[in-house]
Amino acid sequence: MPDQTSHKPSRDGLRADARENRERILDAAREAFAAQGIDVPMAAIARRAKVGVATLYRRFPTRAALVSEAFSEQLTHCVAVLDEGLADPDPWRGFCSVIEKVCMMQARERGFTQAFLSQFPDHAAFTEERARAEEGLALLVRRAKESGRLRPDFDVQDITLLMLANCGATAGAGEDAPAASRRLVAYLLQSFRAGDAAPLPPPAPLGLDRIPTQLHL
Amino acid sequence: MPDQTSHKPSRDGLRADARENRERILDAAREAFAAQGIDVPMAAIARRAKVGVATLYRRFPTRAALVSEAFSEQLTHCVAVLDEGLADPDPWRGFCSVIEKVCMMQARERGFTQAFLSQFPDHAAFTEERARAEEGLALLVRRAKESGRLRPDFDVQDITLLMLANCGATAGAGEDAPAASRRLVAYLLQSFRAGDAAPLPPPAPLGLDRIPTQLHL
Repeated sequence: MPDQTSHKPSRDGLRADARENRERILDAAREAFAAQGIDVPMAAIARRAKVGVATLYRRFPTRAALVSEAFSEQLTHCVAVLDEGLADPDPWRGFCSVIEKVCMMQARERGFTQAFLSQFPDHAAFTEERARAEEGLALLVRRAKESGRLRPDFDVQDITLLMLANCGATAGAGEDAPAASRRLVAYLLQSFRAGDAAPLPPPAPLGLDRIPTQLHL
Repeated sequence: MPDQTSHKPSRDGLRADARENRERILDAAREAFAAQGIDVPMAAIARRAKVGVATLYRRFPTRAALVSEAFSEQLTHCVAVLDEGLADPDPWRGFCSVIEKVCMMQARERGFTQAFLSQFPDHAAFTEERARAEEGLALLVRRAKESGRLRPDFDVQDITLLMLANCGATAGAGEDAPAASRRLVAYLLQSFRAGDAAPLPPPAPLGLDRIPTQLHL
C-alpha cells in the first residue's frame, strides 16, 4: 500500500496507524541502537518512538526481532553485494566491487556517525548473517589471491580494518563522506594489489564483529 | 616536585592540594571535551572534577586557557614529531615517520575512542597551532614529492583522510589498536609511493580542522 495513504483517516485507519507505529518504532530503534548500543532498554526505544511499551512489545515480541527488522534492509543489501561480487567471473574485480560498494554504503548511511562507536556484541540476530558474510568474504579473498591480483599476505581481517578505517574517514568528513570514502578506498585497493608489495606488519585480529552492526555484511 | 608528595599532609599541604586539584581538573576537562565536545559548560567540567566552579575559574580563568592546558602535552609531542620529520635529510623517510608516529599516538591515546566523534570547532586556542601544523605538513609533502618518492597526485588533505581512517581503525580495534594502526598505515604508505600508481578519484576537501582536537598536529 503506498505511503501517502498512511496519514489519511479511512476505513483502514487502524491498520495505517499500526503501520505508522511500526515505522516509527523501527526508526527509533535504529537511532537508539546507534546512540546507545544494542542493549538499550526496550523502554527507551518506546519513549523515543513515542509509543507505549506494550505497543512496542506487541509489534516486536523480542529484542532480537526488533534488531533484526531494524537492520534488515542494510543486511539484505550487503548480502546482495557480496553475492554479486562472488558471481563476478573476474575475482579481483569482484573483490574490488564488494569493497567499493560496502564502503559507499557506509559513507551514505545516515545516522552512521552516531553509530560508529557503538560496539555491538555478539547477538543472536546477527550471528547467522555474520557467519555467512565471513564465509563469503573468505571465499572472495581466496579467489582474488588465486587470480594473482590480490597480494598473498592480504588477510581476510584486513577487510574489517578497511571498513573501520572507512568508518572513521566518513564519520569525520561529514557531507564530504562519499568523496573521502572513494579516495580512501582507491588508495587501499591500490595497496592490496599484488606486485611490488612491500612487507607488512602482521594483521590485527579483527573479526567482523568489530564492525558496528549497521555495517555488517 | 615529585608526584608522590602530593598526597602527604605537609607544610606544603595547600600547594599539594592545589596541584592535585589542577590535575583533576585537567583530567576531567579532557574527558568532558572528549565526551561532550569542546563547548561543554565549565560547570559540567567542575562537577566531573568534583571541584567548585569558583575553584575551576580560579585555576583557569578562561575556557581557552583550560583547553590549551588540557591538550598541551599532545600538542607539544605532535609539534616535536613534525619538526623532527622536517629535519630529516631524507624527505620520504621524514614524511613516513611523521605519519607513523602521529598515527601511533592516536592508537595509544586513552580516551581517544570517546573523543573521536566530537568535532571540535575552530577555537582560538588551536588556531595558531593548526596554522603551524598545516604549514609544516605542506612543506613535508612538497619535499617528499620533490624527492620523487611521494606520488605527485598526493594531496596534503590526504593526511587528514589518513588520520580519520586511523581514528576509525583504532577506535574499532580496542586493545588491538596499535596493531591495527600499524597495518593500516603500512598499507596506506605503500599506496602513497610514487611508481606504478593508479589514478585516484579527487581528494576530499578535508582541512586539519576535521580531526578531533586531541589529535591536532
